[in-house]
Amino acid sequence: MLLQKLREEVLEANLEVVRRGLVLYTFGNASGVDREQGLVVIKPSGVDYDELRPEHMVVTDLNGKLVEGDLRPSSDLDTHTLLYREFPEIGAVVHTHSEYATSFAQAGLPIPAFGTTHADYFYGPVPVTEPLTDEAIGGRYVHETGLAIIARFKNTDEYIDPLAVPACLVAGHAPFVWGRTPHDAAHNAVVLEAVARMAYRTVSLKANADEVSQALLDRHYFRKHGANATYGQASPAGKR
Amino acid sequence: MLLQKLREEVLEANLEVVRRGLVLYTFGNASGVDREQGLVVIKPSGVDYDELRPEHMVVTDLNGKLVEGDLRPSSDLDTHTLLYREFPEIGAVVHTHSEYATSFAQAGLPIPAFGTTHADYFYGPVPVTEPLTDEAIGGRYVHETGLAIIARFKNTDEYIDPLAVPACLVAGHAPFVWGRTPHDAAHNAVVLEAVARMAYRTVSLKANADEVSQALLDRHYFRKHGANATYGQASPAGKR
Amino acid sequence: MLLQKLREEVLEANLEVVRRGLVLYTFGNASGVDREQGLVVIKPSGVDYDELRPEHMVVTDLNGKLVEGDLRPSSDLDTHTLLYREFPEIGAVVHTHSEYATSFAQAGLPIPAFGTTHADYFYGPVPVTEPLTDEAIGGRYVHETGLAIIARFKNTDEYIDPLAVPACLVAGHAPFVWGRTPHDAAHNAVVLEAVARMAYRTVSLKANADEVSQALLDRHYFRKHGANATYGQASPAGKR
Amino acid sequence: MLLQKLREEVLEANLEVVRRGLVLYTFGNASGVDREQGLVVIKPSGVDYDELRPEHMVVTDLNGKLVEGDLRPSSDLDTHTLLYREFPEIGAVVHTHSEYATSFAQAGLPIPAFGTTHADYFYGPVPVTEPLTDEAIGGRYVHETGLAIIARFKNTDEYIDPLAVPACLVAGHAPFVWGRTPHDAAHNAVVLEAVARMAYRTVSLKANADEVSQALLDRHYFRKHGANATYGQASPAGKR
Repeated sequence: MLLQKLREEVLEANLEVVRRGLVLYTFGNASGVDREQGLVVIKPSGVDYDELRPEHMVVTDLNGKLVEGDLRPSSDLDTHTLLYREFPEIGAVVHTHSEYATSFAQAGLPIPAFGTTHADYFYGPVPVTEPLTDEAIGGRYVHETGLAIIARFKNTDEYIDPLAVPACLVAGHAPFVWGRTPHDAAHNAVVLEAVARMAYRTVSLKANADEVSQALLDRHYFRKHGANATYGQASPAGKR
Repeated sequence: MLLQKLREEVLEANLEVVRRGLVLYTFGNASGVDREQGLVVIKPSGVDYDELRPEHMVVTDLNGKLVEGDLRPSSDLDTHTLLYREFPEIGAVVHTHSEYATSFAQAGLPIPAFGTTHADYFYGPVPVTEPLTDEAIGGRYVHETGLAIIARFKNTDEYIDPLAVPACLVAGHAPFVWGRTPHDAAHNAVVLEAVARMAYRTVSLKANADEVSQALLDRHYFRKHGANATYGQASPAGKR
Repeated sequence: MLLQKLREEVLEANLEVVRRGLVLYTFGNASGVDREQGLVVIKPSGVDYDELRPEHMVVTDLNGKLVEGDLRPSSDLDTHTLLYREFPEIGAVVHTHSEYATSFAQAGLPIPAFGTTHADYFYGPVPVTEPLTDEAIGGRYVHETGLAIIARFKNTDEYIDPLAVPACLVAGHAPFVWGRTPHDAAHNAVVLEAVARMAYRTVSLKANADEVSQALLDRHYFRKHGANATYGQASPAGKR
Repeated sequence: MLLQKLREEVLEANLEVVRRGLVLYTFGNASGVDREQGLVVIKPSGVDYDELRPEHMVVTDLNGKLVEGDLRPSSDLDTHTLLYREFPEIGAVVHTHSEYATSFAQAGLPIPAFGTTHADYFYGPVPVTEPLTDEAIGGRYVHETGLAIIARFKNTDEYIDPLAVPACLVAGHAPFVWGRTPHDAAHNAVVLEAVARMAYRTVSLKANADEVSQALLDRHYFRKHGANATYGQASPAGKR
């Protein structure tokens, strides 16, 4: 069986977002990529979490072509593979409908960087895509979802480094989150939801609350990513 | 004993909405119908969930006349039976006072279709009935509750297909939810509450938030109900 | 040992409000009264819930004079005994700082009767007292807390039947709830908090939401209290 | 091994804030001080709570110099030690990113004293610091965080007694809470979060809600701190 260790890590990422309350029924999926072999490991569609085993994970190539597995891959596969092709730095993708992040997505609003919890994980607001056009919805919908994310990050006016801001809200849909490893991507998804909860309450308390200063964003970003740090040497989970 | 399998399914639906936190004390009830025999199986009134067994379920005909059972049926029976008579496509009804859906009902507001979580289950806003008149409240109140739901769906100006939108909020009261099977109805009730939570937060974030486009509603509806799909072939629970 | 059965019921009421999440640390207390003997059984002060046993309950007379017990009674005793003296119909009192009901109390607002969940337990809005005067706060504070509740119910312009509306919010403090038995009082406290949660969200959704009609209040009240029903024949807990 | 008992108390305080849901992953830390020896015991950085043992606690002097321990101390150490140097009355410090208190911190708003739950623990609003300047953020950031707290309490115009109001919100960051013992500091942190939740809902219900009167603040403060009471004789946890 291919990629035994990655299967286990992807399974664990899927289970972590369930344990943390981000997933109702089966509304979520996590994947990981092996860059050397160019293979993606993703959760199958429609298997109960209780029964998920590493051998149920589906293996595809970077274009989503099935390589190994008896089950259908998650229906969001085409978004995952597009993110892997366009963001070569990332190693894993997690998608959930976690409720506060999804509420921002439904409102079409980014999650502002209101505090240090946010700044420790996201170097600026978590952006939201443009709504998908009717044409995109009627066409290769899942692929177009990925394109909307890519457009938001590679928009020439305001390029966003996908490892500096490892998440994007898809307007009217829900968040996609990523990281260097399945562990990091799941961790980022959990923190994103906490950050969304607090941002929701912050704007309820003060509609025009200030975001943190650039100095504070820099401070938190460069303790992890500055000249004296290897990018991602330690996982965010272990930083505090 | 009549209808053993349906009794078990109805019991399981009653327990599922409790497990998912939709029911405080005994504020809920689920039923199912056997269309061939014209019999309804419903939770009895006033039995603790811990002690509920399939044999406690009450069997009535479609007019609510007792056929089998030693216990009184749920006091909402007349709403259930009316829904079965008027919506021949449905196979089960679940009623809860789940808190966010009930809050929309208390505000007299429908739940707008703000995102794909909603669109996967409800092909448009979840409607709310007109408030019951004093005459209706003073008359056959439980039956009138059902009539208010029927009026909302069969209103000639804007007919709603009850399987496309398998839920209705009763103004000043709480949601009624249905489906093809007890499993589906309970599942829909759980998703309705999640969708209500997210809609609540969406309007808090942005009072005039846009609903999803017709194209997106269609996309999600027709993956389940289009020309290439048998209506309800797979339960919503297994779609992702 | 006096009043063994009432001690057990009072203990159980204290534990029920903890189990239902209404009590943080030791911020709550329940009591019951034996009308024949004129004795009150109340939770002691400062004993962990894990260690509470029936024999720890403190017995006083209706003026709060210690009759039996080695521990100090709850510091809210004087409010409980005043309610027993002024409301001869009630048999138990529960006090918690349950968070949503307390938020209404802190805002100095009653809990409007927005739906049937409310109407099944409270025949009209749950009232809030006037703020205590500085003199009252500086005097017999706990007794004055009870007087503020009594004033709200026996206010000649709008007399409220304490069994029809078995709860009051003390402004800037928290709810006091009662019932015919310790079981009912605890049950009413739990439902009050659920009703407060839903009222909070209802006004968030629609600031000027309508309360339910008098017809609906009557309908729900008189199924329990009308000519054909013995007042309190069945406990509210068993009505549905 | 130095300070065995204090290590156990500090460990227990760290675990209490986790058990009470104030800490996501490792976003929190507690410490205690031995005033006679001038030694601080603090949680190490980056050890899972499941594995924390008393011997993992790190011991430093009041300037943060390592005295005993193989692990790095919490990265917030310099805030803790500054608080110990400036507030000689306190014996323990707890820092969490508990979500409602953090939301007030992110909004740059104090937590108003809306009710008796608040007044039992905090003799007035829980203050919020000024935002840190870019210079402070770029300099000795963790130390500057402590300075901002000190400035808020020792501000000559409105001196605040740190044991009367044993918590401060750091703007754009999160709360720091303290007490005479690790147990009290953790307890205060838990109550602060409850008080923040209720204050959030109180202002949602009524934007201009009144704070409690000075008479009520005094009443609650002087039952614990008045002429007839030894300051802190009994821990707040045991007062009710």
